[in-house]
Amino acid sequence: METIKSPDDIKKLNIQQMRQLAQEIREFLINSVSKTGGHLASNLGVVELTLALHKVFNSPEDKIIWDVGHQSYVHKIITGRREKFDTLRQAGGISGFPKTSESPHDVFNTGHSSTSISAALGMAKARDIKKGEYSVIAVIGDGALTGGMSFEALNDAGRSPNNIIVVLNDNEMSISRNVGGLSRYLSKIRTAPIYFKMKEDVSGILSRIPAIGESTARALDRAKGALKYIMVPGIIFEELGFKYLGPIDGHNLEELNDVLSRAKQSKGPVLVHVCTKKGMGYTYAEKNPLVFHGISPFDIETGEVLKYNGPGYSDIFGKELVKLAHEDDNIVAITAAMPQGTGLGLFSKEFPGRFFDVGIAEQHAVTFAAGLAASGLKPVVAIYSSFLQRAYDQILHDVALQNLHVVFAIDRAGVVGEDGETHQGLFDLSYLRQIPNMSIMAPCDNTELRLMLEYALKKHKGPIAIRYPRGMGKEKLVEATSCGIEFGRGVKIKEGKDFTVVALGSMVETALKAASMLEQMGITCDVIDARWAKPMDMKLISASVHKTGKAVVIEDNTVVGGFGSGVLEEFNKAGINVPVKLLGFPDQFIKHGSRDYLFEKYKLDPESVKNEMLKLWK
Amino acid sequence: METIKSPDDIKKLNIQQMRQLAQEIREFLINSVSKTGGHLASNLGVVELTLALHKVFNSPEDKIIWDVGHQSYVHKIITGRREKFDTLRQAGGISGFPKTSESPHDVFNTGHSSTSISAALGMAKARDIKKGEYSVIAVIGDGALTGGMSFEALNDAGRSPNNIIVVLNDNEMSISRNVGGLSRYLSKIRTAPIYFKMKEDVSGILSRIPAIGESTARALDRAKGALKYIMVPGIIFEELGFKYLGPIDGHNLEELNDVLSRAKQSKGPVLVHVCTKKGMGYTYAEKNPLVFHGISPFDIETGEVLKYNGPGYSDIFGKELVKLAHEDDNIVAITAAMPQGTGLGLFSKEFPGRFFDVGIAEQHAVTFAAGLAASGLKPVVAIYSSFLQRAYDQILHDVALQNLHVVFAIDRAGVVGEDGETHQGLFDLSYLRQIPNMSIMAPCDNTELRLMLEYALKKHKGPIAIRYPRGMGKEKLVEATSCGIEFGRGVKIKEGKDFTVVALGSMVETALKAASMLEQMGITCDVIDARWAKPMDMKLISASVHKTGKAVVIEDNTVVGGFGSGVLEEFNKAGINVPVKLLGFPDQFIKHGSRDYLFEKYKLDPESVKNEMLKLWK
Repeated sequence: METIKSPDDIKKLNIQQMRQLAQEIREFLINSVSKTGGHLASNLGVVELTLALHKVFNSPEDKIIWDVGHQSYVHKIITGRREKFDTLRQAGGISGFPKTSESPHDVFNTGHSSTSISAALGMAKARDIKKGEYSVIAVIGDGALTGGMSFEALNDAGRSPNNIIVVLNDNEMSISRNVGGLSRYLSKIRTAPIYFKMKEDVSGILSRIPAIGESTARALDRAKGALKYIMVPGIIFEELGFKYLGPIDGHNLEELNDVLSRAKQSKGPVLVHVCTKKGMGYTYAEKNPLVFHGISPFDIETGEVLKYNGPGYSDIFGKELVKLAHEDDNIVAITAAMPQGTGLGLFSKEFPGRFFDVGIAEQHAVTFAAGLAASGLKPVVAIYSSFLQRAYDQILHDVALQNLHVVFAIDRAGVVGEDGETHQGLFDLSYLRQIPNMSIMAPCDNTELRLMLEYALKKHKGPIAIRYPRGMGKEKLVEATSCGIEFGRGVKIKEGKDFTVVALGSMVETALKAASMLEQMGITCDVIDARWAKPMDMKLISASVHKTGKAVVIEDNTVVGGFGSGVLEEFNKAGINVPVKLLGFPDQFIKHGSRDYLFEKYKLDPESVKNEMLKLWK
Repeated sequence: METIKSPDDIKKLNIQQMRQLAQEIREFLINSVSKTGGHLASNLGVVELTLALHKVFNSPEDKIIWDVGHQSYVHKIITGRREKFDTLRQAGGISGFPKTSESPHDVFNTGHSSTSISAALGMAKARDIKKGEYSVIAVIGDGALTGGMSFEALNDAGRSPNNIIVVLNDNEMSISRNVGGLSRYLSKIRTAPIYFKMKEDVSGILSRIPAIGESTARALDRAKGALKYIMVPGIIFEELGFKYLGPIDGHNLEELNDVLSRAKQSKGPVLVHVCTKKGMGYTYAEKNPLVFHGISPFDIETGEVLKYNGPGYSDIFGKELVKLAHEDDNIVAITAAMPQGTGLGLFSKEFPGRFFDVGIAEQHAVTFAAGLAASGLKPVVAIYSSFLQRAYDQILHDVALQNLHVVFAIDRAGVVGEDGETHQGLFDLSYLRQIPNMSIMAPCDNTELRLMLEYALKKHKGPIAIRYPRGMGKEKLVEATSCGIEFGRGVKIKEGKDFTVVALGSMVETALKAASMLEQMGITCDVIDARWAKPMDMKLISASVHKTGKAVVIEDNTVVGGFGSGVLEEFNKAGINVPVKLLGFPDQFIKHGSRDYLFEKYKLDPESVKNEMLKLWK
């Protein structure tokens, strides 16, 4: 493996050497990710596929686009970044996703699902307009294929004359087990001994060929059962206009080299169906691809994660929802391929009939919830902040416009840390606040999260969001957070006279710490746990600033259009005219690094907040 | 027709009477829409389908969801709203789209494309959880089916046990001619004499059945060509898990009654493929379904629109883009099924190889553009403001994060008028402003639109949006608007001392008029044509408020997170502390009515603006 400095070196290897390289890369991956944490199972699954791609194609002249991109580690290793793998996903280190800024071999940044075919088609059209001669390849998982955007792109590519290769990396998983009609269809292709099936069924038809004169409809009905199984494998793709090649064993280098070479020579759109095993080559990951999808540092021998941090917000949410669902039959839960990550695992077991994993399909998830709500159920949609971006229009147009009672449980709000800029949940306060009829809460501890969820389901009508960060919160930050939730009402959790500090969600703890530091310097603060980003508690806030004469607003969201921006709007409306300092993330994409690191870097840790306040004090 | 007060009355009719009713409804529709304007061609196409649906199903117990919803006029006529048709799309009158607030027969609000199957599936699941016994029907066009969200929903519904009926209203059109692999596939079903084709091809296969012993791959390859045409019609839907019924002549009431009755009895997900002709029964609309899709009042005898308003912003944009594209081969244009509406008709004729209509697929359109830009082309994506909402994540994650040079031509920004709340372009300033790396311009007249487009393509790097309203602008509002565009620089178009009026885009003219009114009262204003919403010209604005001591900001966007909110943020950062009045649309959904009516209602007409300023004056 050490001899592989660039994809050119792959081209010199024979099959035996490639097998050996695959073995070494697997060992390296397991070793490396066991220390840094990261996406393991998906990368173990694409070792051979990645090697074969770099054997057959000439990156970076040929463009390889990795859908989602968390399976690009092998690609990174053989495109000159092996030695940086100990910095993976750490501040200043290499990203866990493709980055054009990192290497010319990363031709398109990815992170969210289902974008690769669209980008590849754009590149293919551009190539043909500019009369270039290279291949464009999108590598997409069967999970990402359920995202509607993939279908939009397949539909467009399928009628286009341009050469484009879509490699379907079919491992039967999104992050959890893949779902839906398409998944069942792929599974049928994978498992059917097509050749023999076809032979048998064709003889079956012979006895059923409808006699001329029978009505078309009836004859068709009868022939259908037999006919539909003599399908060409991949007929869905063929009918959309793709040439289908496969299914191919994705761990057989010879087959891969062969099929990719054929794809390279093909004209027009081609889909190569490659079957892989997530976690391949590491027993624990093969058995538990879900656990080893994105994993913290772990012990290689036992497969055990080294440090368990205790229940995070997701778990608190999941458990409370189960409790509430026992009391109210109308509560149902929806996830877009994230049953575990969102904490809905327990719910799915307790209430299988009221739990819906719609696959990677955030748009559908939200409008589906609108349909449930329109029929009198109480849907809770649990989606990560950055993924919910994809359903902005559905929240606005299908839920909020009809003022439907849908509860959005927005996990991973704020900075997520190691996954970096594509996954930061730094926009939800902004994109939700501008939607009419929408209400938005953020808990500062576990106690508030439980209370807010209960409030949202029992007392609220209309669309409402609860946003909370990745990781753990305190059980009870201060006694006052356990008081009942009222619509648009915050809580003052510390009394002072010099500053009004308005903090939202996870920043309340930061505010409290900064206030304590200032207290030691003789400066006292009203610390307000805002609880609501919309509507905000102007009564409480304005009474406080009337007393203190200055305000600091803290949020873990972009400052553009966010919570602080809302405070400015409200102050403007109310004619409140005091110095206000807005603290939040700046108007830029925030790269990967630990949450603590990012808070320090962007001056949102208690010490920095204190210092910012001191500047206002002078 | 007068005797039809509710769908119950349809059930009493025999086929002959239904035919007569269809005829009367067509006449009524043509007459009515010729006076009010509205969506004509699509409604003429679904007369029989709508009657058959209401014959076979029992609305509102059975739930009929109209995708997009502009084809719901016939449904409205027979569910008690015939007499209100002279108020169609007018302030206070009935909406051109289904509204739950209007009738219990409208069970789900629609407006944007491709939402109906998701909503229907939600309703079907809710019904089964609550042990209800009714049918849920989504009526969706072949155009809307290309929206990825439809596929997400088909994928989910296809593996669900719940009874759900999807009626595919296949008229080979979205608004313009439908595109894509799926469209070609549907066309094949429609046109193939399947029964005979099958018979011929099966005999074809017989001579090609591969001998045992040949390699599977080769045998398949050879058999494929023959096999794929003996497809079951609708095999794509069958493979996704739907029972497929069709294709059916959508103007034959007997066939429709029959197939819908069969669908009603079916278990699980069913797709009924109905072929209709857009504009059916009115020669001009049949010949020109595009023109008669959404039309202004017209002369029934000649089919001519009564009043032509002259070239609007869309035309100015389209012509200028053609001019620029002649000078720069790298310029390409993308639309999502709106070549005419966005003004790209001319471009598509002049540069067919550089024009891409991707169908109703806004997400794909944007990421496809990102792919084009990543390969060195200069894509211009022309999409209406409210539809671009669906690509929020793609703008942020695929374009802005990589700082790609994609130009967004955002048409129908601000209130659109008669189409109402689902189509108002009142959010784009808010949802774009929060995206890092994004720049946003808005022209106040045709001259600025041309200059901005030229600037965006020739001088800018990175993502940039130009937003402009529906309708016409002045050629040149004042002389100063013809000065060259500079990054983040506005223009002062009137000099005064009492007020700073900062206006954006179409509100500049309003500001100018209000200032003129005030001038007659001896109050003078600096009127600033902001040009840029992001970054904004703080140098110009702060110098002005330094002089005048108070500011009014005017925008045709929601005030939440919008342009005015940005001004507050900038004033806050700069420590500018003067009275500021934000004028814009309030935090609510804005119903239909003419643009002028809405500006008056929401106090954004010159007179109201003047009055608001006078309040600040006192």
